[in-house]
Amino acid sequence: MEFNISSVKNEKLAAEIQQKIDTRTKPPGSLGMLEEIAMKISMIQQTETPDITNPTLIVFAADHGLADEGVSAFPKEVTPQMVFNFLNGGAAVNVFAEQNGFDLQVVDAGVDFEFENCPALIDKKIAKGTANILQGPAMTPEQCEKALQAGAELVVEAHLKGTNLIAFGEMGIGNTSSAALIMSRILNLPVSECTGRGTGLDDEKLKNKIKILEKALDKHPDAVNAMDVLQCLGGFEIAMTAGAVLKAAELKMTVLVDGFIITSAVLVAAKLYPQLKDYLIFAHLSDEYAHGKMIQSLDGKPLLRLNMRLGEGSGAAVALPVVRSGVNFLNKMASFEEAAVSEKD
Amino acid sequence: MEFNISSVKNEKLAAEIQQKIDTRTKPPGSLGMLEEIAMKISMIQQTETPDITNPTLIVFAADHGLADEGVSAFPKEVTPQMVFNFLNGGAAVNVFAEQNGFDLQVVDAGVDFEFENCPALIDKKIAKGTANILQGPAMTPEQCEKALQAGAELVVEAHLKGTNLIAFGEMGIGNTSSAALIMSRILNLPVSECTGRGTGLDDEKLKNKIKILEKALDKHPDAVNAMDVLQCLGGFEIAMTAGAVLKAAELKMTVLVDGFIITSAVLVAAKLYPQLKDYLIFAHLSDEYAHGKMIQSLDGKPLLRLNMRLGEGSGAAVALPVVRSGVNFLNKMASFEEAAVSEKD
Repeated sequence: MEFNISSVKNEKLAAEIQQKIDTRTKPPGSLGMLEEIAMKISMIQQTETPDITNPTLIVFAADHGLADEGVSAFPKEVTPQMVFNFLNGGAAVNVFAEQNGFDLQVVDAGVDFEFENCPALIDKKIAKGTANILQGPAMTPEQCEKALQAGAELVVEAHLKGTNLIAFGEMGIGNTSSAALIMSRILNLPVSECTGRGTGLDDEKLKNKIKILEKALDKHPDAVNAMDVLQCLGGFEIAMTAGAVLKAAELKMTVLVDGFIITSAVLVAAKLYPQLKDYLIFAHLSDEYAHGKMIQSLDGKPLLRLNMRLGEGSGAAVALPVVRSGVNFLNKMASFEEAAVSEKD
Repeated sequence: MEFNISSVKNEKLAAEIQQKIDTRTKPPGSLGMLEEIAMKISMIQQTETPDITNPTLIVFAADHGLADEGVSAFPKEVTPQMVFNFLNGGAAVNVFAEQNGFDLQVVDAGVDFEFENCPALIDKKIAKGTANILQGPAMTPEQCEKALQAGAELVVEAHLKGTNLIAFGEMGIGNTSSAALIMSRILNLPVSECTGRGTGLDDEKLKNKIKILEKALDKHPDAVNAMDVLQCLGGFEIAMTAGAVLKAAELKMTVLVDGFIITSAVLVAAKLYPQLKDYLIFAHLSDEYAHGKMIQSLDGKPLLRLNMRLGEGSGAAVALPVVRSGVNFLNKMASFEEAAVSEKD
């Protein structure tokens, strides 16, 4: 699948936006990262009066063949159970999305469960979970392509409904393993530097997880370029997110990036299309080990550091009001001139 | 003025709240600081179902005699100019308070200006600015007492209107100097470790500020206990804030603490009544040098780190939705049992 992502570069406009930021009634630079957000979204929208319309959060759920190997603290049946929890409004992401005005969508990207009579669940199921990567590639090239397309389609639909800021979340027992492997291959780092405790492994189980992931990497020596890494080591939710973020950037939407797993999808996507970085705001630094390094490699800076490590898009959902503050001050604060306030000596 | 602040300690209730936090459908601990907020506000309100009602942000404005010595990057007339900006809705704190549902009040605590026909401005003026502390105490003991009382009164009024979470902001050219001096005396640290660039001093002017503040400290060798420090080195906005936070804690309100200057008022207040700490949530880490050390000395942990350094209560206003998230997940998320989700292996 091809994407057409343009750079946001426009030096004249950037200077005008900076001028507008600096003439609001505050000491220059004193709104810190909010000023960076104002600049970023203004450049994405190529305007001095940016806005956030119909923000949407899409949660992709999928299972992982590797989960059978004991890489997670939770059993695999939790993936469909949590999907029902999302549909019933009882999960963290429901609470935060509702609080902050995110339109929430839940997608079956490839859960190992037959959902029946769930009209609120968006069915994009590729298969009942990926294959066990100790035995072969996580997905076929066709499945990977189909997942990218499904993600892109959902973003097009959101765009048609007026969404110009979008975030993604995920649910999939075992998916920090997939994300760690992607990170390891794309950034060329040892597995141990990319692997964390996920939903809460103890020391011994973490060691075991690392051992299994090293074995999995050895099984796929040729998965080196981004597409092959995604297909051999990824998950359906990760591939759908990769397609979704790329389409979002193509459509000039701001992408509010959640935690470790979503960032791994962005890592793949940005390897394919580096201009993607212009469209990203990193919602938070997850407590999952190695998330910070992943963000750094994308030239990003996390907005929040709340020691969260829940996934689901919960970090993005909590961060949205802070992003709004970045847009609002630019549009609503008075200038020194308007307010007749003296400037710095 | 005396305050009666009770400890929130209640081990049985704390265990019940922790149990409720841990049985929400998420890996234990995975909401990080949001879980700490849930616990804190629940303990303040002594309930498993805390809420935030009619959140109020009171901005105290006052002038400082020391501003005549060139300790700020902005001229002194900016204090009343910014008060008008607040009243007209054009300042950062207006934008963020409106965005996040803070009821905003603006108080003349002691601005060196005669406000006329400003019905929206709450008049608690103690005097037209403090005295120049290079020449004598910032205020008389009577003025200090009056300021504490005025702050406390405003909190009582908010409490009567149903406010159970309150924040404070400030405006006063020169007030980072006052805050630095308070910090230096209360924490027994050299002035240079407490003094930052305020609204944006360059290196040379920062050096000059430190020199002036050292002189000011030398002028008041006997200002050692918290009350004397406040009276000799404080400002009217700082004293009003000190009275206000103490009354808020007495009334079992959650105090959302803003940046460097507001924290200096809390430092004085907590020195007088250490139980105050039970009622504090630190909204953000300001970019003003030494704010972090001040928060640490109060056993606090800042919620946001956005490199903001604007004052006005802007940090507290931006942080409110994150605080709400801490309350909302506790009240609205399903438990593992309710959602029929399997727990950790």
